[in-house]
Amino acid sequence: MTDFAALSVEQFLNDLASSAPTPGGGTAAAVAGAQGSALVEMVCALTLAKEKFAAVHDAVRSIQDGAQVARGEFLDLARRDAEAYDAVVEARRLPKETPEEKAERSRRITVANRRATEVPMQTARTAVRILEALPELVEKGNPNAISDLGTAALLLEAATVAALLNVGINLPGVPDPDFIAQMNSDTADLNERSLRLRDQVVRDVRKRF
Amino acid sequence: MTDFAALSVEQFLNDLASSAPTPGGGTAAAVAGAQGSALVEMVCALTLAKEKFAAVHDAVRSIQDGAQVARGEFLDLARRDAEAYDAVVEARRLPKETPEEKAERSRRITVANRRATEVPMQTARTAVRILEALPELVEKGNPNAISDLGTAALLLEAATVAALLNVGINLPGVPDPDFIAQMNSDTADLNERSLRLRDQVVRDVRKRF
Repeated sequence: MTDFAALSVEQFLNDLASSAPTPGGGTAAAVAGAQGSALVEMVCALTLAKEKFAAVHDAVRSIQDGAQVARGEFLDLARRDAEAYDAVVEARRLPKETPEEKAERSRRITVANRRATEVPMQTARTAVRILEALPELVEKGNPNAISDLGTAALLLEAATVAALLNVGINLPGVPDPDFIAQMNSDTADLNERSLRLRDQVVRDVRKRF
Repeated sequence: MTDFAALSVEQFLNDLASSAPTPGGGTAAAVAGAQGSALVEMVCALTLAKEKFAAVHDAVRSIQDGAQVARGEFLDLARRDAEAYDAVVEARRLPKETPEEKAERSRRITVANRRATEVPMQTARTAVRILEALPELVEKGNPNAISDLGTAALLLEAATVAALLNVGINLPGVPDPDFIAQMNSDTADLNERSLRLRDQVVRDVRKRF
């Protein structure tokens, strides 16, 4: 399985642009989340570098640690999203001649579809977890890097909503009403929180111009 | 000057996370735009690969060509954004002892700030140009890749709004009221168009679940 982190940016984009089924939108969403996390880390680093922000260093260090962990998770999710979708494609190609083959194929498709909703749901959760820290960082962080926090919020929100589109597209393939209801409920909650946090951060950033 | 396209994804993210002034949000916005363009190209490729969509192949090929051009522009803009911001930092470090030095430093800062608004404005324009093609592609493109078009719209809109935050943060450093008025007017127009197109595409994608 491809480790996207090791590819050059240009090669990753070429792979994304190709007609191969993966990498696709789920991987792109996770990489956008990793970019957002990296920008949060940068703003933290620019705050920790200045003695005049010493009073907030402990709080900022904690946000930086969280963003760094999230960046690693996003790169892992980028890979796992492609694996999950490849498994869906593979399951669909299984033979379906005999009743036994049909049953086995159907079972494998269900398992793969379920996985193809769980992985992007995790991408959305990780993105919202970092978004939740941004209003505090807008208050406490180095104001010279305020526009970078706005960019981080935009990329993390895009990652969230995009990941949830990938949940939604794969969800009808999971014949489990309780699971579907839970995923739909989580989707509505994460969509709402990410948009609200994005709007709050972008508005606060624009106030500083 | 660093060619970000040649870095590994992991190294690019490390550079983004570091406290070095560049790459920052402007470069991240352009890379997100490149990812959005690549996803548009992928959906076009998945449509052109199927004979059953032959009736729309000409229109789709034209969108694919446009997205490919835009991807190259975004990678160029990612580099130029970092160069523009480095020039601002460099100009601020010029000596300011004598009146002549002060005047020269002030002139150089103005030129650099102007450039640091023009580059992200171009990023926003390129992103909106591709966003404009998406409603047609949602109609005509391979429906199996519909969620990837939603992801493309989200990344291109995030790239637009983020680039425009970078315009806004640098604009007060350009002492030219006509230029400021024009950039503010363009900013309002591009923000509005990108959000409207994102909402339209995401809504159309969700209808297909």
